[in-house]
Amino acid sequence: MRFDLPTPGFSFELLATLGHARAGILHTPRGDIPTPVFMPVGTLGTVKAMTADELRAEPLDARIILGNTYHLYLRPGLEVIGLAGGLHKFAAWDRPILTDSGGFQVFSLAAINQIDDDGVTFRSHIDGSKHRLTPEVSMHIQKTLGSDIAMCFDQCPPGDAPADVQEVALARTTAWAARCKAAEHAPGQAVFGIVQGGIDVERRRRHMAEITKLDFDGYALGGLAVGEKVEDTYRVLDEVAHELPAERPRYLMGVGTPQDLERGITAGIDMFDCVMPTRNARNGYLFTSQGRVNIPNAQYRTDLGPVDPACPCSTCRTYSRAYLRHLYVAKEILYARLATLHNLTFYARHVRALRERILAEGRRA
Amino acid sequence: MRFDLPTPGFSFELLATLGHARAGILHTPRGDIPTPVFMPVGTLGTVKAMTADELRAEPLDARIILGNTYHLYLRPGLEVIGLAGGLHKFAAWDRPILTDSGGFQVFSLAAINQIDDDGVTFRSHIDGSKHRLTPEVSMHIQKTLGSDIAMCFDQCPPGDAPADVQEVALARTTAWAARCKAAEHAPGQAVFGIVQGGIDVERRRRHMAEITKLDFDGYALGGLAVGEKVEDTYRVLDEVAHELPAERPRYLMGVGTPQDLERGITAGIDMFDCVMPTRNARNGYLFTSQGRVNIPNAQYRTDLGPVDPACPCSTCRTYSRAYLRHLYVAKEILYARLATLHNLTFYARHVRALRERILAEGRRA
Repeated sequence: MRFDLPTPGFSFELLATLGHARAGILHTPRGDIPTPVFMPVGTLGTVKAMTADELRAEPLDARIILGNTYHLYLRPGLEVIGLAGGLHKFAAWDRPILTDSGGFQVFSLAAINQIDDDGVTFRSHIDGSKHRLTPEVSMHIQKTLGSDIAMCFDQCPPGDAPADVQEVALARTTAWAARCKAAEHAPGQAVFGIVQGGIDVERRRRHMAEITKLDFDGYALGGLAVGEKVEDTYRVLDEVAHELPAERPRYLMGVGTPQDLERGITAGIDMFDCVMPTRNARNGYLFTSQGRVNIPNAQYRTDLGPVDPACPCSTCRTYSRAYLRHLYVAKEILYARLATLHNLTFYARHVRALRERILAEGRRA
Repeated sequence: MRFDLPTPGFSFELLATLGHARAGILHTPRGDIPTPVFMPVGTLGTVKAMTADELRAEPLDARIILGNTYHLYLRPGLEVIGLAGGLHKFAAWDRPILTDSGGFQVFSLAAINQIDDDGVTFRSHIDGSKHRLTPEVSMHIQKTLGSDIAMCFDQCPPGDAPADVQEVALARTTAWAARCKAAEHAPGQAVFGIVQGGIDVERRRRHMAEITKLDFDGYALGGLAVGEKVEDTYRVLDEVAHELPAERPRYLMGVGTPQDLERGITAGIDMFDCVMPTRNARNGYLFTSQGRVNIPNAQYRTDLGPVDPACPCSTCRTYSRAYLRHLYVAKEILYARLATLHNLTFYARHVRALRERILAEGRRA
């Protein structure tokens, strides 16, 4: 079954379901995205250490990457990206890009000066310069970036904030979502709404009703895996994910471990992003079919086997654990490249295998 | 004219000469090396930021790279590289490798404890551990690395050392060269002698006579461009390079700028290595057909042109100066990759263009 999304050129095709899990295709003007999908994070106009060619090449074959509005707004700034004709041209990436709204980074990285019903005033984490983000400013930045999917600007209170703070943030996020929807978007740019509400399922359901009423192209669960207990994350996922509209893509923001992805897919999620595969790679942690490999460990000094014997990535086909460990210890740039390529390939194949299972064992939709 | 070198499997083919300049091919068991050639420096078993595939790909097409004996001996050490079956297998590089002797690094990086006629005792620049290098130890390390061309272990006194110090070092370097020649080498491993003598042409000639008498596969000029005035470097080059045996490859160690390479080729040199293209790339300096581009400069913030319009490398074909500047400012790993690939391609094409000129305008040899 194929559902047209509100933004022309976008549709969501549901191919099969297995319990709440779904396999489908998100069709976009810049190409098809088989779902479930993991989106590598390209914070500053580059998935750290990778070229666009490497991201596109099999077996990684990334169909969509993420860009961070907050980071790109500060560096290189809108003037540069605007002159370049948008983020795709600037970064030589011709497949879809999803941009976040900047909200999460403002609340986690910047020094907040003021939050009011109109927006947020903050100081840059780089040079302390003062800036203001509102729903309209966030959408304007994302319009200039020219992403294929823009996210609504939301307020992300700490998970342990008191109930009244949560309620104010929730009401604000709904009001801001309506303003994001009303703002001008780039041509062919879909917009996703974000459902907040912390780990309180009733609050999540209430907010879901408010946000879905605004008829976005897709819906995200925000504010999960931000410090709460993992059983709370999974409980909210299990209760809420499958209640998001079935005919729209569902996106779990900023999550997570390979196990988290499997739980999210089982709960009915279609899209994921996380810095974990890229950041962990740079820090020496490699995901493999045999469990995690902490490459700095002395046991790998003379280990001439590949990082993961089951992995077809060029790192595993070409180099040994001993070579990667040597590069890591010697702080060689090549280490970050080889490790990142492997971890991203592991994540892509992990999600693709789960997709294949849904297609093989599930019910045709 | 094709000259067999003393080591079986190696020959040097002289194709054309133009004045003292020569175009040829160094034939090795691991492949042909058109000369003049610039050899990218792979200090620690990786040309910094590059994969073997990228180095081999057109238009860079590196035919030989350098490995540093001192660095590789300290990290990852001989046990690891020995188990891996040598540096080629460890680093997945199947084309020729030239290894230096470790001498230059011991004298420039390490803390020297003692120099005597037998060798050098020093402390590692990494952890202060104590080691000893002798001609035999250096050749043993290079044998384990399994390089295609090993260099003799030499003593490199500072260029401004008094005459008696120079003479002692010179006599030692000759004695050590004989011991390097007599030591056991890897199968199919050529050995080059090194001519020292500072900026005194008479001393250079005297040492050249001593070293060439030992009948090495090729000859290097060491101890140039190590702090002396550039006119002294060029004077020694002009006087001495063309007096090295014509039927053997001639190698100018650790040099230099694109202009230095042109001067060296004009003087009769066939082989060069230098960290300049790779190190300068990482530091923001890009070589172009229009002169140097210092990418951090504000003028490149919105410059949407390629680094070098005349360059066919994938960096120049894909990305703008503005994008590279952004990556540099944001300290993104991708910057080092793109910049290194470009600078190495510039060097390769620079030397190749000079070779073409010798072939086109020179006399067939």
